[in-house]
Amino acid sequence: MSENAADCVIVGAGLAGLSAARALEAAGREVVVLEARDRVGGRTVNEPIGGGEVVELGGQWVGPGQDSILGLIEELGLETFPTFGEGRSLFERRGKVRRYRGTIPRLNPFALAEIGRGLSKINRMASRVNPDAPWGQHELADWDRTSFDSWIRRNFRTGAGRDAMRMATEAVWAAEPGDVSLLHVLFYVRSAGSIDLLLDTEGGSQEARVTGGTQLISVRMAEQMARPVRFRTAARAISHREGEVVVEAEDLDSGRPVEFSAADAVVAIPPVLAGRLTYSPALPAQRDGLTQRMIQGSVVKTMTIYDRPFWREQGLNGRAVSAEGPVSVVFDNSPPGGSPGVLLAFLEGDAARRAADLPREQRREIVVGCLSRLFGDAAAAPVDYVDKAWAADEWARGCYGGFMPTGAWMPYGAALRAPIGPIHWAGAETSSRWAGYMEGAVRSGRRAAEEILGAAGT
Amino acid sequence: MSENAADCVIVGAGLAGLSAARALEAAGREVVVLEARDRVGGRTVNEPIGGGEVVELGGQWVGPGQDSILGLIEELGLETFPTFGEGRSLFERRGKVRRYRGTIPRLNPFALAEIGRGLSKINRMASRVNPDAPWGQHELADWDRTSFDSWIRRNFRTGAGRDAMRMATEAVWAAEPGDVSLLHVLFYVRSAGSIDLLLDTEGGSQEARVTGGTQLISVRMAEQMARPVRFRTAARAISHREGEVVVEAEDLDSGRPVEFSAADAVVAIPPVLAGRLTYSPALPAQRDGLTQRMIQGSVVKTMTIYDRPFWREQGLNGRAVSAEGPVSVVFDNSPPGGSPGVLLAFLEGDAARRAADLPREQRREIVVGCLSRLFGDAAAAPVDYVDKAWAADEWARGCYGGFMPTGAWMPYGAALRAPIGPIHWAGAETSSRWAGYMEGAVRSGRRAAEEILGAAGT
Repeated sequence: MSENAADCVIVGAGLAGLSAARALEAAGREVVVLEARDRVGGRTVNEPIGGGEVVELGGQWVGPGQDSILGLIEELGLETFPTFGEGRSLFERRGKVRRYRGTIPRLNPFALAEIGRGLSKINRMASRVNPDAPWGQHELADWDRTSFDSWIRRNFRTGAGRDAMRMATEAVWAAEPGDVSLLHVLFYVRSAGSIDLLLDTEGGSQEARVTGGTQLISVRMAEQMARPVRFRTAARAISHREGEVVVEAEDLDSGRPVEFSAADAVVAIPPVLAGRLTYSPALPAQRDGLTQRMIQGSVVKTMTIYDRPFWREQGLNGRAVSAEGPVSVVFDNSPPGGSPGVLLAFLEGDAARRAADLPREQRREIVVGCLSRLFGDAAAAPVDYVDKAWAADEWARGCYGGFMPTGAWMPYGAALRAPIGPIHWAGAETSSRWAGYMEGAVRSGRRAAEEILGAAGT
Repeated sequence: MSENAADCVIVGAGLAGLSAARALEAAGREVVVLEARDRVGGRTVNEPIGGGEVVELGGQWVGPGQDSILGLIEELGLETFPTFGEGRSLFERRGKVRRYRGTIPRLNPFALAEIGRGLSKINRMASRVNPDAPWGQHELADWDRTSFDSWIRRNFRTGAGRDAMRMATEAVWAAEPGDVSLLHVLFYVRSAGSIDLLLDTEGGSQEARVTGGTQLISVRMAEQMARPVRFRTAARAISHREGEVVVEAEDLDSGRPVEFSAADAVVAIPPVLAGRLTYSPALPAQRDGLTQRMIQGSVVKTMTIYDRPFWREQGLNGRAVSAEGPVSVVFDNSPPGGSPGVLLAFLEGDAARRAADLPREQRREIVVGCLSRLFGDAAAAPVDYVDKAWAADEWARGCYGGFMPTGAWMPYGAALRAPIGPIHWAGAETSSRWAGYMEGAVRSGRRAAEEILGAAGT
């Protein structure tokens, strides 16, 4: 075949697209992968910080139950190491910084009881959601029409309890409780297993990291592919009919159009970006409506780098949550050897929106100011600072991923991964297990490949 | 100037784009208007039904307070005539069809009192919204986080009251109460003046129609332009820097790219479609986030045509509202002379979503079935049927217009019409008065023109 023809053309060289490519190649198919960026990894990306070390500006954690990504990591000869956790965490609220152990800070007993009851209720409600097809569960329609914020205000009376739920929403969805539907929260919790898994570090989805950085997963997959990924090649239009698809892309270096033809396509980019391609014939109203509604989260992921992890010497594990903001959550993100010291600080939801279009230098001031409040004067003198405002990245337009506002899952959810002719949809959002996580991305790519291979077999 | 260069390039030949063009030409500017369709009018469109008569498959009504569009109609030598209203209206709920007079059907007194109180409360709350900048009113943040559905369930106890509010939401926003934020409802009401104006026919925004159809407004404006509109020319990409803009479009007949350059651009298409153009440099995160959040409404506008308006002979005005659906609202939409008889039936919100991707023949069956239930056997034998599923139209992707889900107005509203370098934003959604109406579209185009002319003057 010519270099622009293949059995399958894949749009996006993130974990989903490359997982699809890997599965298709394993089955003997010829695959061409198009990537607008000059790198693989999509929403996982390593940033070198000198001395051979990297920090990850995108998805980074893996945890129990995420068998596909953990298996893939092993298969690729990569290793994981535990997220640093020795010592106490910090909690800031109403101008005071306190130390605590475990997942939930010491609060007044009323708030603690309320949070405990609330999280249990979320797990109970989530257990009623069928993550494979929530759109078919008409008995859950009220949850689809209610924002998570409205649910929190009805179920939480204490300020500390409401703050805790807001911070949890920011940490898990990079959104505010008012942005996301109650049904989306419950779908997402169900698709992972429980809210505890999403919030916990030890025993949860923040448990472990990948030595050398998670982008290596994509780098290794790409290295093993028969054909090199086509970088700086931005898909713009897809013409399709049964059994044939042509992807028109722009070579971003020359500005020239370049066409790729195949029997099938896998579109492995976030739904909102998939909605911005031009389709011919135009997509059905339901699929288009889905892409109008699935919104990308808002996060600026920042790494402040110190010559050493000074907080460890003070009995701190580097974790902090702040109800004051703008930094809401902090982790010790030092490399496995513990040098240099790295504090990962998230700006999420509204804080990320306010910061996304600022110059990086201003974001650095904001973040270092917060870290100093939390960790003391030693935090005021970093040796370096890097960050990524994902909403300003035109090939992501937000992270961690897409979420549903009210009124979206019920009428439009069925279009999330239903193929349209030869076009298949992948990406972390489209997975019914661990939706939004690297695990979901890998699963979604393999599922798209199975659709193609299965259909050919019949 | 060459035909592809101008002072201003305008994307979209609907009421907003043409109003901008008209204002700019009046001030001596050279303007080129690009239109993807083969016609002007955007979301207003005439459909000939024989005998020199037309029906309108898009926006059609004008009413008191809509001074810009009414003035423009007069200026263009067009005329209006009153929406037919002689006789009684029909109301269907729980399998029964009843006759009534006025705006609100006869219901039980509890429901009537509740609806009265609810509408007053909406007007009171709306009066607190500043339609020019609701995003600056942080005291209204709770309204932004709450879906209209949650508000209705808190404020309405009777089934009839809740049904009435659902039908009103469908009629005004082509959305379900669960889709739209409370703040958006209040902004929209405030931008028109009162909820009564939005719901009423006589004395309200459904008061009058335009002889020959509203598309004539755009047709006349286009006829008077110095340069002809460039049809079948779909904008795809906009490169910009201060004082210069290049719009790259696709000639849809040849498939070839064609470039237009100007000092300024006016993008006069719905926000979600504006978000699907490729911008270079990429747009700021806030503007992009807005386009991720402003969702197009869901409506199938249908016209069922009879040899004569038989309902008039039965003392009916052709209006009906049904809580049963799928048709929710019906109007007598016969031409001014009363022949043929035309019933306008709306499928809106979820009903429109279910119907948008069906074959027209199936929609006809659905609609004629509903009309027969409401108007009796005579309605079962139409002579013709036409409709338009706006969500399936790739140059609209929904109607009547864009609405905001929860969590959108506060963080993103400021990007709705703030120019970005030489790019100005128009369209009915961007108006602070009569947002979403033809009136708002005309105002938005003139406002965009003023931005350009005003800036040049300073």
